[in-house]
Amino acid sequence: MFAPAYLDHNATTPVDARVLEAMLPWFSRRHGNASSRHEYGRAARAAVDEARMRVAMAVGAHATEVVFTSGGTEGNNLFLRGAAAEMKGGIVAISAVEHPSVREPARALQRQGWRMREVAVDGAGRVATADFSAALAERPAIVSVMLANNETGVLQDVGMLAEMARPTRAWFHTDAVQALGKMPVDFRALNARGVHALTVSAHKIGGPKGAGALVVDKRLELVPQLAGGGQERGLRSGTENVPAIVGFGAACQLVVEQESAAATRLLALRGELERGLAEQGATIFGLAAERLPNTIFFALPAIDGETLVGKLDRAGFAVASGSACSSVDPEPSHVLMAMGVAPDLAQGAVRISLGRDATEQEARDFLGALAETAFQLRRLAALAG
Amino acid sequence: MFAPAYLDHNATTPVDARVLEAMLPWFSRRHGNASSRHEYGRAARAAVDEARMRVAMAVGAHATEVVFTSGGTEGNNLFLRGAAAEMKGGIVAISAVEHPSVREPARALQRQGWRMREVAVDGAGRVATADFSAALAERPAIVSVMLANNETGVLQDVGMLAEMARPTRAWFHTDAVQALGKMPVDFRALNARGVHALTVSAHKIGGPKGAGALVVDKRLELVPQLAGGGQERGLRSGTENVPAIVGFGAACQLVVEQESAAATRLLALRGELERGLAEQGATIFGLAAERLPNTIFFALPAIDGETLVGKLDRAGFAVASGSACSSVDPEPSHVLMAMGVAPDLAQGAVRISLGRDATEQEARDFLGALAETAFQLRRLAALAG
Repeated sequence: MFAPAYLDHNATTPVDARVLEAMLPWFSRRHGNASSRHEYGRAARAAVDEARMRVAMAVGAHATEVVFTSGGTEGNNLFLRGAAAEMKGGIVAISAVEHPSVREPARALQRQGWRMREVAVDGAGRVATADFSAALAERPAIVSVMLANNETGVLQDVGMLAEMARPTRAWFHTDAVQALGKMPVDFRALNARGVHALTVSAHKIGGPKGAGALVVDKRLELVPQLAGGGQERGLRSGTENVPAIVGFGAACQLVVEQESAAATRLLALRGELERGLAEQGATIFGLAAERLPNTIFFALPAIDGETLVGKLDRAGFAVASGSACSSVDPEPSHVLMAMGVAPDLAQGAVRISLGRDATEQEARDFLGALAETAFQLRRLAALAG
Repeated sequence: MFAPAYLDHNATTPVDARVLEAMLPWFSRRHGNASSRHEYGRAARAAVDEARMRVAMAVGAHATEVVFTSGGTEGNNLFLRGAAAEMKGGIVAISAVEHPSVREPARALQRQGWRMREVAVDGAGRVATADFSAALAERPAIVSVMLANNETGVLQDVGMLAEMARPTRAWFHTDAVQALGKMPVDFRALNARGVHALTVSAHKIGGPKGAGALVVDKRLELVPQLAGGGQERGLRSGTENVPAIVGFGAACQLVVEQESAAATRLLALRGELERGLAEQGATIFGLAAERLPNTIFFALPAIDGETLVGKLDRAGFAVASGSACSSVDPEPSHVLMAMGVAPDLAQGAVRISLGRDATEQEARDFLGALAETAFQLRRLAALAG
């Protein structure tokens, strides 16, 4: 099989071989329902408990604060809907660059009488402190600001924002789906500064699709959004997805062991790629901000992003245009719009997101293929013009 | 590893070896996000589409009617909450023997001003037609009656009930999680009689945990309960769990190929077990009703179900007491209570649920172990008395 170089790890990652190995016994020989009381059930329960510890360890939380979900989207929905259901309505404040799985449930709350307040970002994609203050003055009941953006990789100073929000007594959530595995994520430290809940997902860190978690301060009374058998302390009913949860735990252990070394290496690689891109005349979005070590969101002048992604795919490089998680949506990136990027330039946006095992050779090959592809596209455009 | 005989297939099933084989490539080599536009993404999308066809085929639906979920609990919640969100409130009518993943969301609607109307069942666990008529006279907006009960295996005549409900214009749903793979499930035929939606789950049919579907008449306007990237026609956002969905498709194909032959064989085995149980003085719940071919829910006089399950586990047989899916809940079975079973007898309830590959030898061994265990327990009780 022809295997293009995969440079789209913010969309999803391959399951690490060690993670898959940890998962395999739980599909068949040890297939019990974790709620069953016989040997098969008890073994499954113990495996879920162990995975819960590993996830907790990777995010600096206590195991009892981890609520397993089917993934990041469910975690974000559980927080926003589950918090709102305890309240009589009010304002939900989110940054203008949140992932659709935060934006859309916030919009859904509007239909129930809530108001959604989007907080502006600056040209580099960072939450604008002045507008955040203005939003807080409106007394939001719920606030959600992501740790790291999925498109640009831009980091937010969530701890500082949570401290600012503290006097309002709003419930503060952060989407840490893209942060985990690429930078330190410490719920205990964030919680001390006023963050009440945090979402993570397995398939972004070398774990399987189908598992994620909402890490949540137990003083919060969330209303469950999936009711039934009462699993996950009643907060998330449904048969525990044991193999996926075990895989999530194993992937978290790899994060603990490797994140710091991988980040250093990726940062060097990112620098190399960015120098090459700059030489080709690319604009790199969020360049002035602190960003994830694996992510570059860029555009080449007068070249369409979609077209470029298609050509690069045929040349053997899998990258994303706009936000890959919601590529069903052909609109220009709302993240770039919020950053004030001109629509023409935003149309050219392409995202590279490296995996832990990315190599210098891959980076060089990519830059070569990009130069060649851009040259061809420009020549075609000149001929057509 | 010591491997007890697994007679608890209504709680969960091992993943069939052919299913796991179909899933494996999608964890690593072919790990794309189905929303990505490059080669990895397109391959994942094609795999999801093919699985959707297989699931549709197994339940007699069109592929466009299949909405993938994380499992049965999510499917049931999506229907009940998603239907109710389009309405101004009213009555939700459910049978008294529904699974907690139907009962609990119906209860949650009560907190939003809905009324929950439980429809009585007869002594054999079948919906009482007279009470169902009375419930319909109250004009429910939503009705949910399961095809087959998870504890007793008792079948409901859902087609007939849907025809009765038709004049009320209620939205009619059936939980088919336990039915699929054990009896024919035909959404087209049910839909023609007035059923609008049907829930199924992969891990009950030799597929993986983490995948299920709500099969839904497209004239229904459900409000999504997970908002975000807009996957599943906007009805269920979240990165598609490609390996689990592929496994669900493969398991559905096995259902199509094997269900009928397996049912005949299991029915014979069930008969043998029931004769043996009767000889030991057991009461078999729902005996007078049509039941799933793999399920026997019984009690031995004056023997506690929990204790019996524990002893049988040590003797090498994994069976369930009460409802295994919610064994976190120590209450006596609400299903047996609804059937008017005396609490003392209900306390003794034990469920055997056979898999497709159950053998006569296993059945005989189980009956022997049960007789021996019951003898010991009675002797202990006599000594203590």
